[in-house]
Amino acid sequence: MSITIDLEQDHLHEECGVFGIYSKNKDFNVAYDIFHGLYALQHRGQESAGIAVVKDRKIHFHKQKGLVSTVFQKENLKQLKGSMGVGHVRYSTTGNSSALQNAQPLVVNYKKGSIALAHNGNLINAYSLRTLMEDKGIIFQSTNDSEVIANLVAQMHGTNIEEALKATMNLIKGSYALVIVNKDKLIGVRDIYGNRPLVIGKREDAYVLASESCALDAVGAEMVRDVEPGEIVTIDEKGIHSIFSSYDCKKAVCIFEYVYFARPDSIIEGISVYHSRYQAGKILAQESPVDADIVISVPDSGTPAAIGYSKFSGIPYELGLIKNKYVGRTFIEASQKKREAAVRIKLNPLRSAIEGKRVVMVDDSIVRGTTSKQIVCFLKQAGAKEVHLRISSPPILNSCYFGIDTPDRRQLIAANVSIPQICEEIGADSLAYISEEGILKTVENLRHCVCTGCFTGNYPMEVPKEATKYLFEKQ
Amino acid sequence: MSITIDLEQDHLHEECGVFGIYSKNKDFNVAYDIFHGLYALQHRGQESAGIAVVKDRKIHFHKQKGLVSTVFQKENLKQLKGSMGVGHVRYSTTGNSSALQNAQPLVVNYKKGSIALAHNGNLINAYSLRTLMEDKGIIFQSTNDSEVIANLVAQMHGTNIEEALKATMNLIKGSYALVIVNKDKLIGVRDIYGNRPLVIGKREDAYVLASESCALDAVGAEMVRDVEPGEIVTIDEKGIHSIFSSYDCKKAVCIFEYVYFARPDSIIEGISVYHSRYQAGKILAQESPVDADIVISVPDSGTPAAIGYSKFSGIPYELGLIKNKYVGRTFIEASQKKREAAVRIKLNPLRSAIEGKRVVMVDDSIVRGTTSKQIVCFLKQAGAKEVHLRISSPPILNSCYFGIDTPDRRQLIAANVSIPQICEEIGADSLAYISEEGILKTVENLRHCVCTGCFTGNYPMEVPKEATKYLFEKQ
Amino acid sequence: MSITIDLEQDHLHEECGVFGIYSKNKDFNVAYDIFHGLYALQHRGQESAGIAVVKDRKIHFHKQKGLVSTVFQKENLKQLKGSMGVGHVRYSTTGNSSALQNAQPLVVNYKKGSIALAHNGNLINAYSLRTLMEDKGIIFQSTNDSEVIANLVAQMHGTNIEEALKATMNLIKGSYALVIVNKDKLIGVRDIYGNRPLVIGKREDAYVLASESCALDAVGAEMVRDVEPGEIVTIDEKGIHSIFSSYDCKKAVCIFEYVYFARPDSIIEGISVYHSRYQAGKILAQESPVDADIVISVPDSGTPAAIGYSKFSGIPYELGLIKNKYVGRTFIEASQKKREAAVRIKLNPLRSAIEGKRVVMVDDSIVRGTTSKQIVCFLKQAGAKEVHLRISSPPILNSCYFGIDTPDRRQLIAANVSIPQICEEIGADSLAYISEEGILKTVENLRHCVCTGCFTGNYPMEVPKEATKYLFEKQ
Amino acid sequence: MSITIDLEQDHLHEECGVFGIYSKNKDFNVAYDIFHGLYALQHRGQESAGIAVVKDRKIHFHKQKGLVSTVFQKENLKQLKGSMGVGHVRYSTTGNSSALQNAQPLVVNYKKGSIALAHNGNLINAYSLRTLMEDKGIIFQSTNDSEVIANLVAQMHGTNIEEALKATMNLIKGSYALVIVNKDKLIGVRDIYGNRPLVIGKREDAYVLASESCALDAVGAEMVRDVEPGEIVTIDEKGIHSIFSSYDCKKAVCIFEYVYFARPDSIIEGISVYHSRYQAGKILAQESPVDADIVISVPDSGTPAAIGYSKFSGIPYELGLIKNKYVGRTFIEASQKKREAAVRIKLNPLRSAIEGKRVVMVDDSIVRGTTSKQIVCFLKQAGAKEVHLRISSPPILNSCYFGIDTPDRRQLIAANVSIPQICEEIGADSLAYISEEGILKTVENLRHCVCTGCFTGNYPMEVPKEATKYLFEKQ
Repeated sequence: MSITIDLEQDHLHEECGVFGIYSKNKDFNVAYDIFHGLYALQHRGQESAGIAVVKDRKIHFHKQKGLVSTVFQKENLKQLKGSMGVGHVRYSTTGNSSALQNAQPLVVNYKKGSIALAHNGNLINAYSLRTLMEDKGIIFQSTNDSEVIANLVAQMHGTNIEEALKATMNLIKGSYALVIVNKDKLIGVRDIYGNRPLVIGKREDAYVLASESCALDAVGAEMVRDVEPGEIVTIDEKGIHSIFSSYDCKKAVCIFEYVYFARPDSIIEGISVYHSRYQAGKILAQESPVDADIVISVPDSGTPAAIGYSKFSGIPYELGLIKNKYVGRTFIEASQKKREAAVRIKLNPLRSAIEGKRVVMVDDSIVRGTTSKQIVCFLKQAGAKEVHLRISSPPILNSCYFGIDTPDRRQLIAANVSIPQICEEIGADSLAYISEEGILKTVENLRHCVCTGCFTGNYPMEVPKEATKYLFEKQ
Repeated sequence: MSITIDLEQDHLHEECGVFGIYSKNKDFNVAYDIFHGLYALQHRGQESAGIAVVKDRKIHFHKQKGLVSTVFQKENLKQLKGSMGVGHVRYSTTGNSSALQNAQPLVVNYKKGSIALAHNGNLINAYSLRTLMEDKGIIFQSTNDSEVIANLVAQMHGTNIEEALKATMNLIKGSYALVIVNKDKLIGVRDIYGNRPLVIGKREDAYVLASESCALDAVGAEMVRDVEPGEIVTIDEKGIHSIFSSYDCKKAVCIFEYVYFARPDSIIEGISVYHSRYQAGKILAQESPVDADIVISVPDSGTPAAIGYSKFSGIPYELGLIKNKYVGRTFIEASQKKREAAVRIKLNPLRSAIEGKRVVMVDDSIVRGTTSKQIVCFLKQAGAKEVHLRISSPPILNSCYFGIDTPDRRQLIAANVSIPQICEEIGADSLAYISEEGILKTVENLRHCVCTGCFTGNYPMEVPKEATKYLFEKQ
Repeated sequence: MSITIDLEQDHLHEECGVFGIYSKNKDFNVAYDIFHGLYALQHRGQESAGIAVVKDRKIHFHKQKGLVSTVFQKENLKQLKGSMGVGHVRYSTTGNSSALQNAQPLVVNYKKGSIALAHNGNLINAYSLRTLMEDKGIIFQSTNDSEVIANLVAQMHGTNIEEALKATMNLIKGSYALVIVNKDKLIGVRDIYGNRPLVIGKREDAYVLASESCALDAVGAEMVRDVEPGEIVTIDEKGIHSIFSSYDCKKAVCIFEYVYFARPDSIIEGISVYHSRYQAGKILAQESPVDADIVISVPDSGTPAAIGYSKFSGIPYELGLIKNKYVGRTFIEASQKKREAAVRIKLNPLRSAIEGKRVVMVDDSIVRGTTSKQIVCFLKQAGAKEVHLRISSPPILNSCYFGIDTPDRRQLIAANVSIPQICEEIGADSLAYISEEGILKTVENLRHCVCTGCFTGNYPMEVPKEATKYLFEKQ
Repeated sequence: MSITIDLEQDHLHEECGVFGIYSKNKDFNVAYDIFHGLYALQHRGQESAGIAVVKDRKIHFHKQKGLVSTVFQKENLKQLKGSMGVGHVRYSTTGNSSALQNAQPLVVNYKKGSIALAHNGNLINAYSLRTLMEDKGIIFQSTNDSEVIANLVAQMHGTNIEEALKATMNLIKGSYALVIVNKDKLIGVRDIYGNRPLVIGKREDAYVLASESCALDAVGAEMVRDVEPGEIVTIDEKGIHSIFSSYDCKKAVCIFEYVYFARPDSIIEGISVYHSRYQAGKILAQESPVDADIVISVPDSGTPAAIGYSKFSGIPYELGLIKNKYVGRTFIEASQKKREAAVRIKLNPLRSAIEGKRVVMVDDSIVRGTTSKQIVCFLKQAGAKEVHLRISSPPILNSCYFGIDTPDRRQLIAANVSIPQICEEIGADSLAYISEEGILKTVENLRHCVCTGCFTGNYPMEVPKEATKYLFEKQ
């Protein structure tokens, strides 16, 4: 028997990345740009990818399970002709079997024609809305929130699409960054808390919308600004203009975008993701100093904080763990002893840097603790005299309801045992998390505008008990 | 440059085959049986295939572009666990790009739970119904009639599914053979004209529904009877029972099932397809005799009529054309001269049987006439002294609105030129079609209960001018 | 658990088909023609396919496991540029694992440059020759006889390739039809018995070599003649010319090409394959008449003989069994009862033609008898009053050493039990094989020039005891 | 039109990685271990991968084009049963078309049975040896040196395999690290200069041979030692033992393994690859200091040297460029302007770290200079005030003849223009390479035992003018 190894399993997961582009040149094909944009956003979702483009007021699309570079070959891109379009990458939480029907963009026809819609986020009242619509005789073909949103927009067909979206926003609760194309415009929507990121970029010939600014860079576009919470941005032949939802918007950007999800080269709400992580390292060094010889990171996500820790503490930064850069599933034969080897296939300690050293190992977060335990074990085997674990986010104590795949609370190690117990379980010589105050300092200007629910249990909105998409699958 | 050759292109095409099975044994997996049923119905649709099964009141499904044996591998079948389910094969008329989203069974969730629905036929008022529903804010994700039907059923959720289907039948016009599963039952529905075939079969452990009886044979089931026009058959743990739509049903079975679509080993409405074709050959020999040395068929569809022609005329039957049995697309470099060779790749004249002979060549129908022309040319090159073409169906003069892919009237050769002109164009020494009376004799007991619209223009129901699914694709 | 069904397993199997073409036009690409030629020869081998072409004195090739239409896509064909080349289809007897390295054409470099070689046949002294060469330090990368031949040719590099082939023919024993290209010529070779077929064709612009004439038809070439036993045909810019091996050639063409292997539209040694089968049916009717209502065939190979039987006996020919035309592997769940259903998936009795009838069923041969038994059983279930089995070849009593995959003698039913016992085992009401004299009459002009070893044990050459390729795989 | 982007193209390329394992437990399957070993060596070759295992004295193998994780699926690994075996990853220099026939391990049968052979390196007298053998009538099926070696071994079959290898080493010139299995033993061979690395590892149950020690870590084996130059190591049921070639061995390990090829966590000849790179950074800082604000690396290969530069210079290390970690080919539409964007798809400057800063950018080498130029351009666009390029290897002035794919000398920028000119071309504010003395210090203990031919033109052996494998492809 063999088992499949996925080192990333011990991290929280973003569920989606979205991208949209509108070219002023009607003869230009945006499919390559969307491809590059999605490739830059690949870290936000690896299970399926899709692109929809508009040509002569008709939507053409292709979506499949797999990585962007697998789903889209030259042939597919060549056939996707159109001067505007949207794309989506998705990390599925519900298993392979439903990956295809849940792949986005969702393309639907309604009274006003066709739209393609790509969504990042999670609606907490989707179940109630779905029930209401089912009472009216509506059918659903997926378990995507996007289908709920598309149905609401379709029901409001008496008005234009922007007004329909505004009305929809009055009904839906939760997080959402949406990019939508219909026959003649590209629209971007961000929820009233701005919980999920969405930015606007500009190139000589085109406007771009993307989950992260790194995707703007990938297509040669300049950052214009973030979409505002509650804003509906429309891009068409008249240019760019916006309307706002009728709500007061209380900004509550997901802090975990800074901690782990976003690429370090992205800028969210004016704050460099790299810089915030680097700062976290510095603060961690201040809050939890330790007498040690070297600072190492768990690559790649722990690296900026490790560099920051090194800088403030003066302890030299070294490469201590080498990550095999060839992603893709690997297999091992199942047996307890082999499990250990499984992590080493992906991550190998660099003995010559570690041997005889007192090591500070910086990681971005601890979810279940299983991988951390194995890495500490390897470092000791490789001759580390001491291993001091420093985590650049506070303990994860609560589930997320806004688009992050958090495991069941019983699997969150910090929700179940004390920090000293975690330290013992992991086998580290010491363990410290950054403080809640500390993490807020890393995003200083946004300190009152972030959602820290996973650390504090304080969510930007009421979280109803039944708030979970898993209820959708009825008997 | 290269072009793709498809010899079948010069035939009319069925658009779908459906199959359903309900096993009394809850632990039995029906996926293999559905696979074999679809494999037996493969001639009814080669572009996509799908299977949906029900296990513990949940629907699992897999559908893809491709032949049944390509779409389903051991792995897929193993994962499709459930003791009842439905399957579908589809011939797409709308090109490859939309093949995947139009693949069936259609699986939807609605107020009452999930259903999987497979449809063969065509609704002539689908566009009007869709418009009505779009006015109510309904969205559509495909151009399938099945989605219209599923929405209507969902709107009638106040009653049980059989009553909802009955009410739906009061709204839809056109042809439909449906198989549906929900959480606890298998349902079969045939339109009020019985235009598309649907039969009931029985095995010790299971009931079966299928487009043709050859699929019952494939799973070891015995034929019970045809589903009646307007009948809704329900199979569940209480056994089999039916209700009927409220309409008087005027039976109008598609005559082309006998002429070409159905497999010769199928029995439709008590008439053997093989026998009716064989009869057509006999009648053709009677109506249009010719002094000749041998009778040959255009394989495989013309063979039963050729055998019948031989029997009545006393002219010996011979193999005159050998068909390459390895289906699959082939390529040739594009050039007028090579086009000729293209047909020969699939069909080769058997010189030793033909040389110096006066040949009667029996085929089931002529659509565009291009392939017939090439075959006659080959036979002459192979030394045939004369080639007399006998067609076992009357001239095709009209489009079909009930599920058959007929080309534009301008491409139907018989709708544009006289029979002598066709004969000249094709290069045959004589050409005769069976008479309308003749074709009716081949299905004698059903003579007043068949649709011969493609020959006569007399359709069983009013055909509105806009009756075509191509209108669905809005701007 | 599931098992794979292959209805063809109860037939003898040809092991290869070869094709070569030389165009006078240096700018013409022959890859499409080779593709079409191999497609026409697909029945001779379905496990792997390969094409090698020569452009600017360099050989380019592509070969893979799978059917011709799978192995070669537009892309592959486009890349295979060259005005001459060879192709090969192969039926592997040694299992999937080695299919790839044994795929042909074999492309090798030697003293004189590169050659691509495709072989149909079997060398009975390959093992001895291999041993001799291994003693000289030669390595082998496959278990193909072709590699033995290529090595012998390379060892004779002191002379030109035709002389090298002539010298090679003095060393090898067994059957071989070879097509070879080097940098500037196409060569065809047939063994001194002419055991395996090889024909020469001509098109305005090109010469063609092929295992069967049906492949000439597929590329629009006219038959010129068979390659003679022991002949080495060279085609180059000077035209076509030949030399002969130094042996007296005693022609011994494989009789089974007429019985089953070759396509009915092929002409071998001036005899139409269709005609010889048709004759076999007539002779069988004469030798073993029976009072019956209809004659049917086991499709497709038994059909010509069935038509012949019908003609002579006056008993009408009918379609009695419908074969599913979609080839490809199918799966069933393993269980004794299901085994029966397995054959029916591929072959369904046509009840309306059979019911209440006394049936003569004509088949080309019986190998193990298992499929025949199941078919007879189906016919009886479908209502046949009597089933009389007539076989258009004599009983197969011996193994073939010349390129046909015969099962172990213990599995040859006729080698183990008497004809009445076979009849009883199969469940037929009577069973008769054509006589040895009868089968010779079907190829009258060739009567003294055929190998009937599988029926009579008389082989055209001494068959050494160790004559089998299975010995190659050393420990 | 679209072009394919491969950022790695502007680096030198290793051509192969080899791996072998012998388990004492006859029932243990080593395929998974070989898979993990090759996965760890994937950086040494990405075009094809192969595994050969020995079970019951027979060799089974599978090789294909593609990455290790693509070529080997669970199914393949499950079928590869055997308690010893070898594996190979290959970077092809000769284009896709020949990738499959050149894939290794090479499996051949010869007088003494079967062997599987995997080779890293390049023979400089392969052409002459091939010519000699062709004169004897030997054929070749690939352009691999491995086939030359296998033939030589086969010719020496009068003695045992170790002696045959020893004799072979007397004939071949060039670099080679070989792993070989025959029916009962695993053998490792390193050329008399030890130019290509090969290490021995040990696990409780098994011995392991690998190109790099990181592959030992991947399978849980401990490093034993490097194979010695000229050593032939045999591992069989009697344990491990060696013999030596008859030559005096002058060690000349490839310096570029330390500079770029090997993984940083590997130990070669007792020197940590990471450490040597880190030292190179330190020495570079010493030799070519610069007044700057931050040190960044070109990921991932420049990172250890950048950390070393930072440490010695005291200038803080920062992440300045983010590499998209999803490998795989990407496409862009061809146009000059887009070429720029092409690099950015793989590598994005981290503006927040760079803006307004004087940047030292450390890279391992410059080949053509095109990528460096683009990166410097991006950094300036991202606001870098100055960019000082520091290269941790001396200028590459000469081709490699020992297994490294160096471009034509005309494409080596340093071989054509002066360092100041390179600096200007690239657009950097300053440019410095480490000195030859400096690079030797990074491998101090090995200073007299490295090959620095690509920098100095001093090769460990005479390099004949015709020394190139490209000559193999004859007309």
